[in-house]
Amino acid sequence: FYGEPVDPALAARFAFWCEADRLKSVYRATPIADGSRKENTGEHSWHIMLYALTLADQAQDGVDIAMALKMLLLHDIVEIDAGDTPIHGAVTPEAQKAQEEAEIKAADRLFGLLPPEQGAEFRAIWEDFEAAQTPTAIFAKSIDRVQPVLHNLADDGGSWRTYDVKLHQLDARVGVKIAKGCPKLWPYIRSQCEPWFVARGAL
Amino acid sequence: FYGEPVDPALAARFAFWCEADRLKSVYRATPIADGSRKENTGEHSWHIMLYALTLADQAQDGVDIAMALKMLLLHDIVEIDAGDTPIHGAVTPEAQKAQEEAEIKAADRLFGLLPPEQGAEFRAIWEDFEAAQTPTAIFAKSIDRVQPVLHNLADDGGSWRTYDVKLHQLDARVGVKIAKGCPKLWPYIRSQCEPWFVARGAL
Ligand SMILES: [Ca+2]
Repeated sequence: FYGEPVDPALAARFAFWCEADRLKSVYRATPIADGSRKENTGEHSWHIMLYALTLADQAQDGVDIAMALKMLLLHDIVEIDAGDTPIHGAVTPEAQKAQEEAEIKAADRLFGLLPPEQGAEFRAIWEDFEAAQTPTAIFAKSIDRVQPVLHNLADDGGSWRTYDVKLHQLDARVGVKIAKGCPKLWPYIRSQCEPWFVARGAL
Repeated sequence: FYGEPVDPALAARFAFWCEADRLKSVYRATPIADGSRKENTGEHSWHIMLYALTLADQAQDGVDIAMALKMLLLHDIVEIDAGDTPIHGAVTPEAQKAQEEAEIKAADRLFGLLPPEQGAEFRAIWEDFEAAQTPTAIFAKSIDRVQPVLHNLADDGGSWRTYDVKLHQLDARVGVKIAKGCPKLWPYIRSQCEPWFVARGAL
Protein backbone atom coordinates (compact mmCIF):
# COMPACT_ATOMS: atom_id res chain seq x y z
CA PHE A 1 0.00 0.00 0.00
CA TYR A 2 0.99 3.56 -0.64
CA GLY A 3 1.08 6.49 1.79
CA GLU A 4 1.37 6.53 5.54
CA PRO A 5 -1.08 4.63 7.73
CA VAL A 6 -2.95 7.16 9.84
CA ASP A 7 -4.82 4.66 11.98
CA PRO A 8 -2.87 1.65 13.30
CA ALA A 9 -6.04 -0.39 13.93
CA LEU A 10 -7.17 0.08 10.33
CA ALA A 11 -3.69 -0.60 8.97
CA ALA A 12 -3.62 -3.85 10.97
CA ARG A 13 -6.96 -4.86 9.50
CA PHE A 14 -5.81 -4.09 5.97
CA ALA A 15 -2.87 -6.42 6.52
CA PHE A 16 -5.20 -9.11 7.85
CA TRP A 17 -7.61 -8.86 4.91
CA CYS A 18 -4.81 -9.03 2.36
CA GLU A 19 -3.32 -12.06 4.06
CA ALA A 20 -6.75 -13.69 4.40
CA ASP A 21 -7.18 -13.19 0.66
CA ARG A 22 -4.69 -16.03 0.15
CA LEU A 23 -7.40 -18.47 1.23
CA LYS A 24 -8.65 -18.08 -2.35
CA SER A 25 -5.50 -19.84 -3.50
CA VAL A 26 -5.78 -22.83 -1.15
CA TYR A 27 -7.34 -25.65 -3.16
CA ARG A 28 -9.35 -28.46 -1.63
CA ALA A 29 -9.74 -32.12 -2.56
CA THR A 30 -13.36 -31.63 -3.63
CA PRO A 31 -14.46 -30.02 -6.91
CA ILE A 32 -16.92 -27.22 -7.49
CA ALA A 33 -20.31 -28.68 -8.36
CA ASP A 34 -19.81 -28.75 -12.13
CA GLY A 35 -16.59 -30.74 -11.66
CA SER A 36 -14.59 -28.31 -13.81
CA ARG A 37 -11.94 -27.54 -11.18
CA LYS A 38 -11.07 -27.97 -7.51
CA GLU A 39 -12.77 -25.67 -5.05
CA ASN A 40 -10.75 -23.12 -3.12
CA THR A 41 -11.25 -22.61 0.58
CA GLY A 42 -12.40 -18.98 0.29
CA GLU A 43 -15.36 -19.78 -1.95
CA HIS A 44 -16.00 -22.97 0.04
CA SER A 45 -16.39 -20.84 3.17
CA TRP A 46 -18.97 -18.66 1.44
CA HIS A 47 -20.86 -21.68 0.15
CA ILE A 48 -21.14 -23.42 3.50
CA MET A 49 -22.38 -20.24 5.13
CA LEU A 50 -25.17 -20.34 2.56
CA TYR A 51 -25.85 -23.93 3.61
CA ALA A 52 -25.92 -22.91 7.27
CA LEU A 53 -28.39 -20.11 6.68
CA THR A 54 -30.59 -22.36 4.57
CA LEU A 55 -30.48 -25.16 7.12
CA ALA A 56 -31.22 -23.00 10.15
CA ASP A 57 -34.43 -24.98 10.70
CA GLN A 58 -32.37 -28.19 11.08
CA ALA A 59 -30.43 -26.72 13.98
CA GLN A 60 -31.02 -28.22 17.41
CA ASP A 61 -31.74 -26.39 20.65
CA GLY A 62 -29.15 -23.87 21.69
CA VAL A 63 -27.73 -23.18 18.24
CA ASP A 64 -26.97 -19.52 17.56
CA ILE A 65 -27.12 -19.20 13.77
CA ALA A 66 -25.41 -15.80 13.71
CA MET A 67 -22.48 -17.27 15.63
CA ALA A 68 -22.46 -20.38 13.41
CA LEU A 69 -22.03 -18.05 10.41
CA LYS A 70 -19.12 -16.30 12.13
CA MET A 71 -17.52 -19.67 12.89
CA LEU A 72 -17.83 -20.77 9.27
CA LEU A 73 -16.54 -17.40 8.06
CA LEU A 74 -13.35 -17.84 10.12
CA HIS A 75 -13.03 -21.61 10.44
CA ASP A 76 -10.58 -22.31 7.62
CA ILE A 77 -8.38 -19.20 7.70
CA VAL A 78 -5.61 -21.24 9.31
CA GLU A 79 -5.39 -23.21 6.04
CA ILE A 80 -3.48 -20.26 4.56
CA ASP A 81 -0.43 -21.47 6.47
CA ALA A 82 -1.40 -25.02 7.38
CA GLY A 83 -3.08 -26.19 4.16
CA ASP A 84 -6.25 -28.23 3.75
CA THR A 85 -6.41 -31.78 5.14
CA PRO A 86 -8.63 -33.87 2.86
CA ILE A 87 -11.06 -35.75 5.04
CA HIS A 88 -10.56 -38.98 3.09
CA GLY A 89 -6.77 -38.74 2.92
CA ALA A 90 -4.89 -41.30 5.03
CA VAL A 91 -3.56 -39.59 8.14
CA THR A 92 -1.23 -41.08 10.74
CA PRO A 93 -1.53 -39.92 14.36
CA GLU A 94 1.85 -38.18 13.93
CA ALA A 95 0.68 -36.31 10.84
CA GLN A 96 -2.53 -35.40 12.63
CA LYS A 97 -0.56 -33.96 15.53
CA ALA A 98 1.74 -32.02 13.20
CA GLN A 99 -1.31 -30.63 11.41
CA GLU A 100 -2.86 -29.47 14.67
CA GLU A 101 0.37 -27.76 15.67
CA ALA A 102 0.62 -26.09 12.27
CA GLU A 103 -2.93 -24.80 12.66
CA ILE A 104 -2.19 -23.33 16.07
CA LYS A 105 0.87 -21.59 14.70
CA ALA A 106 -1.21 -20.34 11.79
CA ALA A 107 -3.84 -18.98 14.17
CA ASP A 108 -1.10 -17.22 16.17
CA ARG A 109 0.23 -15.54 13.07
CA LEU A 110 -2.99 -14.75 11.20
CA PHE A 111 -5.27 -13.61 14.03
CA GLY A 112 -2.14 -11.93 15.42
CA LEU A 113 -2.21 -9.51 12.50
CA LEU A 114 -5.35 -7.92 13.91
CA PRO A 115 -5.56 -5.38 16.74
CA PRO A 116 -5.08 -7.54 19.88
CA GLU A 117 -8.63 -7.39 21.20
CA GLN A 118 -10.15 -8.27 17.84
CA GLY A 119 -7.55 -10.95 17.17
CA ALA A 120 -8.41 -12.57 20.51
CA GLU A 121 -12.13 -12.42 19.74
CA PHE A 122 -11.74 -14.08 16.32
CA ARG A 123 -9.38 -16.66 17.70
CA ALA A 124 -11.84 -17.58 20.45
CA ILE A 125 -14.52 -18.13 17.81
CA TRP A 126 -12.16 -20.38 15.84
CA GLU A 127 -11.21 -22.31 19.00
CA ASP A 128 -14.87 -22.84 19.91
CA PHE A 129 -15.49 -24.21 16.44
CA GLU A 130 -12.50 -26.54 16.61
CA ALA A 131 -13.45 -27.78 20.08
CA ALA A 132 -16.90 -28.79 18.77
CA GLN A 133 -18.43 -28.79 22.24
CA THR A 134 -21.25 -26.24 21.99
CA PRO A 135 -24.47 -26.87 20.03
CA THR A 136 -23.46 -24.02 17.70
CA ALA A 137 -20.04 -25.50 16.96
CA ILE A 138 -21.52 -28.98 16.47
CA PHE A 139 -24.03 -27.52 14.00
CA ALA A 140 -21.31 -25.59 12.15
CA LYS A 141 -19.08 -28.69 11.96
CA SER A 142 -21.99 -30.67 10.58
CA ILE A 143 -22.60 -28.10 7.85
CA ASP A 144 -18.90 -28.15 6.92
CA ARG A 145 -19.28 -31.88 6.20
CA VAL A 146 -22.47 -31.69 4.15
CA GLN A 147 -21.30 -29.68 1.19
CA PRO A 148 -18.39 -31.86 -0.01
CA VAL A 149 -20.73 -34.88 -0.04
CA LEU A 150 -23.11 -33.11 -2.40
CA HIS A 151 -20.26 -31.96 -4.65
CA ASN A 152 -18.85 -35.44 -4.83
CA LEU A 153 -22.31 -36.73 -5.76
CA ALA A 154 -22.70 -34.04 -8.42
CA ASP A 155 -19.25 -34.90 -9.83
CA ASP A 156 -19.72 -38.68 -10.08
CA GLY A 157 -17.80 -39.40 -6.90
CA GLY A 158 -15.28 -36.53 -6.87
CA SER A 159 -12.81 -37.09 -4.06
CA TRP A 160 -14.41 -40.46 -3.22
CA ARG A 161 -12.89 -41.67 -6.48
CA THR A 162 -9.54 -40.03 -5.69
CA TYR A 163 -9.34 -41.74 -2.30
CA ASP A 164 -11.28 -44.93 -3.17
CA VAL A 165 -13.80 -44.32 -0.40
CA LYS A 166 -16.26 -47.02 0.72
CA LEU A 167 -19.73 -46.31 2.06
CA HIS A 168 -18.82 -47.47 5.57
CA GLN A 169 -15.92 -45.00 5.51
CA LEU A 170 -18.27 -42.22 4.47
CA ASP A 171 -20.52 -43.19 7.37
CA ALA A 172 -17.63 -43.14 9.84
CA ARG A 173 -15.76 -40.07 8.62
CA VAL A 174 -18.63 -37.87 7.53
CA GLY A 175 -22.02 -39.31 8.45
CA VAL A 176 -21.43 -39.40 12.18
CA LYS A 177 -20.53 -35.70 12.25
CA ILE A 178 -23.37 -34.61 10.00
CA ALA A 179 -25.84 -36.61 12.07
CA LYS A 180 -24.59 -35.07 15.29
CA GLY A 181 -25.34 -31.52 14.16
CA CYS A 182 -28.25 -32.14 11.76
CA PRO A 183 -29.89 -35.45 12.76
CA LYS A 184 -32.66 -35.32 10.16
CA LEU A 185 -30.33 -34.40 7.33
CA TRP A 186 -27.94 -37.34 7.30
CA PRO A 187 -30.47 -40.13 6.53
CA TYR A 188 -31.63 -38.15 3.52
CA ILE A 189 -28.12 -37.41 2.27
CA ARG A 190 -27.08 -41.01 2.83
CA SER A 191 -30.03 -42.27 0.81
CA GLN A 192 -28.81 -40.06 -2.04
CA CYS A 193 -25.26 -41.40 -1.79
CA GLU A 194 -25.96 -45.08 -1.34
CA PRO A 195 -26.75 -45.92 -4.99
CA TRP A 196 -23.40 -44.48 -6.13
CA PHE A 197 -21.49 -46.71 -3.72
CA VAL A 198 -23.70 -49.74 -4.43
CA ALA A 199 -23.16 -49.35 -8.18
CA ARG A 200 -19.40 -49.50 -7.63
CA GLY A 201 -19.55 -52.32 -5.10
CA ALA A 202 -17.90 -49.94 -2.65
CA LEU A 203 -19.67 -50.76 0.56
CA PHE B 1 -28.24 -36.64 -7.84
CA TYR B 2 -29.05 -40.29 -7.45
CA GLY B 3 -31.97 -41.93 -5.70
CA GLU B 4 -35.38 -40.61 -4.85
CA PRO B 5 -35.78 -37.41 -2.88
CA VAL B 6 -37.59 -38.24 0.35
CA ASP B 7 -38.00 -34.68 1.57
CA PRO B 8 -39.10 -32.06 -0.98
CA ALA B 9 -37.82 -29.17 1.16
CA LEU B 10 -34.37 -30.70 1.32
CA ALA B 11 -34.41 -31.58 -2.37
CA ALA B 12 -35.30 -27.96 -3.16
CA ARG B 13 -32.40 -26.76 -1.06
CA PHE B 14 -30.00 -29.16 -2.75
CA ALA B 15 -31.02 -27.67 -6.09
CA PHE B 16 -30.52 -24.16 -4.76
CA TRP B 17 -27.04 -24.90 -3.38
CA CYS B 18 -25.90 -26.52 -6.61
CA GLU B 19 -27.16 -23.59 -8.63
CA ALA B 20 -25.64 -21.10 -6.18
CA ASP B 21 -22.33 -22.89 -6.67
CA ARG B 22 -22.12 -21.29 -10.11
CA LEU B 23 -21.31 -17.97 -8.40
CA LYS B 24 -17.78 -19.40 -8.15
CA SER B 25 -17.57 -19.17 -11.93
CA VAL B 26 -18.71 -15.53 -12.21
CA TYR B 27 -15.56 -13.43 -12.54
CA ARG B 28 -15.32 -9.83 -11.45
CA ALA B 29 -13.34 -6.88 -12.83
CA THR B 30 -11.08 -6.75 -9.76
CA PRO B 31 -8.21 -9.16 -9.11
CA ILE B 32 -7.48 -11.20 -6.01
CA ALA B 33 -4.97 -9.33 -3.87
CA ASP B 34 -1.84 -10.90 -5.39
CA GLY B 35 -3.01 -9.84 -8.86
CA SER B 36 -2.60 -13.37 -10.25
CA ARG B 37 -6.18 -13.72 -11.52
CA LYS B 38 -9.62 -12.13 -11.40
CA GLU B 39 -11.70 -12.69 -8.31
CA ASN B 40 -14.90 -14.71 -8.53
CA THR B 41 -18.08 -13.57 -6.86
CA GLY B 42 -18.33 -16.55 -4.49
CA GLU B 43 -14.96 -15.95 -2.86
CA HIS B 44 -15.58 -12.19 -3.00
CA SER B 45 -18.73 -12.71 -0.93
CA TRP B 46 -16.77 -14.61 1.71
CA HIS B 47 -14.08 -11.97 1.80
CA ILE B 48 -16.39 -9.01 2.29
CA MET B 49 -18.19 -10.85 5.09
CA LEU B 50 -14.79 -11.01 6.76
CA TYR B 51 -14.45 -7.25 6.23
CA ALA B 52 -17.89 -6.66 7.72
CA LEU B 53 -17.14 -8.70 10.83
CA THR B 54 -13.79 -6.97 11.26
CA LEU B 55 -15.32 -3.52 10.77
CA ALA B 56 -18.25 -4.01 13.13
CA ASP B 57 -16.90 -1.18 15.31
CA GLN B 58 -17.19 1.21 12.34
CA ALA B 59 -20.91 0.57 12.05
CA GLN B 60 -23.24 3.40 12.94
CA ASP B 61 -26.29 3.30 15.21
CA GLY B 62 -28.94 0.82 14.22
CA VAL B 63 -26.68 -1.57 12.29
CA ASP B 64 -27.40 -5.25 12.90
CA ILE B 65 -24.10 -6.99 12.09
CA ALA B 66 -25.66 -10.46 11.94
CA MET B 67 -28.13 -9.20 9.33
CA ALA B 68 -25.35 -7.37 7.45
CA LEU B 69 -23.54 -10.69 7.18
CA LYS B 70 -26.67 -12.36 5.80
CA MET B 71 -27.07 -9.55 3.27
CA LEU B 72 -23.49 -9.95 2.08
CA LEU B 73 -23.87 -13.70 1.95
CA LEU B 74 -26.83 -13.38 -0.42
CA HIS B 75 -26.22 -10.04 -2.12
CA ASP B 76 -24.56 -11.22 -5.33
CA ILE B 77 -26.37 -14.50 -6.00
CA VAL B 78 -28.35 -12.82 -8.79
CA GLU B 79 -25.06 -12.47 -10.69
CA ILE B 80 -25.34 -16.16 -11.59
CA ASP B 81 -27.90 -15.15 -14.19
CA ALA B 82 -27.35 -11.40 -14.50
CA GLY B 83 -23.53 -11.21 -14.39
CA ASP B 84 -21.31 -8.72 -12.60
CA THR B 85 -21.52 -5.02 -13.45
CA PRO B 86 -18.07 -3.50 -12.99
CA ILE B 87 -18.48 -0.31 -10.99
CA HIS B 88 -16.12 1.62 -13.24
CA GLY B 89 -17.55 0.32 -16.51
CA ALA B 90 -19.46 2.88 -18.58
CA VAL B 91 -23.19 2.26 -18.19
CA THR B 92 -26.00 3.95 -20.08
CA PRO B 93 -29.34 4.47 -18.33
CA GLU B 94 -30.79 1.86 -20.71
CA ALA B 95 -28.13 -0.69 -19.80
CA GLN B 96 -28.65 0.10 -16.14
CA LYS B 97 -32.36 -0.54 -16.47
CA ALA B 98 -31.80 -3.78 -18.37
CA GLN B 99 -29.38 -4.90 -15.67
CA GLU B 100 -31.92 -4.21 -12.93
CA GLU B 101 -34.56 -6.18 -14.80
CA ALA B 102 -32.13 -9.05 -15.32
CA GLU B 103 -31.40 -9.08 -11.60
CA ILE B 104 -35.06 -9.21 -10.69
CA LYS B 105 -35.57 -12.12 -13.08
CA ALA B 106 -32.53 -13.81 -11.57
CA ALA B 107 -33.92 -13.33 -8.07
CA ASP B 108 -37.23 -14.84 -9.20
CA ARG B 109 -35.52 -17.91 -10.57
CA LEU B 110 -32.80 -18.48 -7.97
CA PHE B 111 -34.67 -17.74 -4.74
CA GLY B 112 -37.60 -19.50 -6.40
CA LEU B 113 -35.68 -22.76 -6.21
CA LEU B 114 -36.08 -22.76 -2.43
CA PRO B 115 -39.15 -23.80 -0.45
CA PRO B 116 -41.50 -20.78 -0.83
CA GLU B 117 -41.25 -19.41 2.69
CA GLN B 118 -37.46 -19.57 2.73
CA GLY B 119 -37.19 -18.19 -0.78
CA ALA B 120 -39.32 -15.21 0.25
CA GLU B 121 -37.20 -14.65 3.35
CA PHE B 122 -33.93 -14.66 1.38
CA ARG B 123 -35.37 -12.47 -1.31
CA ALA B 124 -36.54 -9.91 1.24
CA ILE B 125 -32.99 -9.76 2.63
CA TRP B 126 -31.63 -9.20 -0.88
CA GLU B 127 -34.25 -6.51 -1.59
CA ASP B 128 -33.43 -4.70 1.66
CA PHE B 129 -29.77 -4.71 0.68
CA GLU B 130 -30.52 -3.41 -2.80
CA ALA B 131 -32.82 -0.67 -1.50
CA ALA B 132 -29.99 0.61 0.74
CA GLN B 133 -32.41 2.41 3.06
CA THR B 134 -31.75 0.86 6.46
CA PRO B 135 -28.57 1.50 8.47
CA THR B 136 -27.71 -2.19 8.09
CA ALA B 137 -28.04 -2.13 4.30
CA ILE B 138 -26.07 1.13 4.07
CA PHE B 139 -23.30 -0.44 6.14
CA ALA B 140 -23.29 -3.61 4.01
CA LYS B 141 -23.20 -1.58 0.78
CA SER B 142 -20.27 0.40 2.16
CA ILE B 143 -18.34 -2.79 2.95
CA ASP B 144 -19.01 -4.11 -0.56
CA ARG B 145 -17.22 -1.01 -1.92
CA VAL B 146 -14.19 -1.14 0.37
CA GLN B 147 -12.62 -4.39 -0.68
CA PRO B 148 -12.15 -3.74 -4.44
CA VAL B 149 -10.37 -0.48 -3.60
CA LEU B 150 -7.83 -2.32 -1.49
CA HIS B 151 -7.33 -4.99 -4.15
CA ASN B 152 -6.80 -2.39 -6.82
CA LEU B 153 -4.24 -0.69 -4.58
CA ALA B 154 -2.48 -3.99 -3.92
CA ASP B 155 -2.43 -4.75 -7.67
CA ASP B 156 -0.98 -1.40 -8.82
CA GLY B 157 -4.34 -0.02 -9.87
CA GLY B 158 -6.15 -3.20 -10.93
CA SER B 159 -9.47 -2.27 -12.53
CA TRP B 160 -8.63 1.46 -12.23
CA ARG B 161 -6.07 0.83 -14.96
CA THR B 162 -8.57 -1.21 -17.02
CA TYR B 163 -11.16 1.57 -16.92
CA ASP B 164 -8.74 4.55 -16.73
CA VAL B 165 -10.31 5.80 -13.51
CA LYS B 166 -9.55 9.30 -12.13
CA LEU B 167 -9.51 10.13 -8.42
CA HIS B 168 -12.62 12.30 -8.69
CA GLN B 169 -14.44 9.33 -10.27
CA LEU B 170 -13.32 7.10 -7.40
CA ASP B 171 -14.68 9.71 -5.00
CA ALA B 172 -18.02 9.88 -6.79
CA ARG B 173 -18.55 6.19 -7.57
CA VAL B 174 -17.03 4.60 -4.49
CA GLY B 175 -16.05 7.13 -1.84
CA VAL B 176 -19.52 8.55 -1.34
CA LYS B 177 -20.95 5.10 -0.64
CA ILE B 178 -18.13 4.00 1.64
CA ALA B 179 -18.39 7.25 3.60
CA LYS B 180 -22.13 6.85 4.02
CA GLY B 181 -21.81 3.48 5.76
CA CYS B 182 -18.38 3.86 7.38
CA PRO B 183 -17.69 7.59 7.78
CA LYS B 184 -14.32 7.21 9.51
CA LEU B 185 -13.06 4.64 7.04
CA TRP B 186 -13.19 6.57 3.79
CA PRO B 187 -10.73 9.38 4.68
CA TYR B 188 -8.17 6.76 5.62
CA ILE B 189 -8.71 4.67 2.50
CA ARG B 190 -8.65 7.77 0.32
CA SER B 191 -5.33 8.87 1.82
CA GLN B 192 -3.94 5.47 0.84
CA CYS B 193 -5.23 5.78 -2.73
CA GLU B 194 -4.34 9.38 -3.45
CA PRO B 195 -0.62 8.87 -4.13
CA TRP B 196 -1.36 6.26 -6.82
CA PHE B 197 -3.65 8.66 -8.69
CA VAL B 198 -1.29 11.64 -8.14
CA ALA B 199 1.65 9.65 -9.52
CA ARG B 200 -0.32 8.98 -12.72
CA GLY B 201 -1.69 12.50 -13.00
CA ALA B 202 -5.16 10.93 -12.79
CA LEU B 203 -7.02 13.42 -10.65
CA1 LIG C 1 -11.64 -27.47 6.26
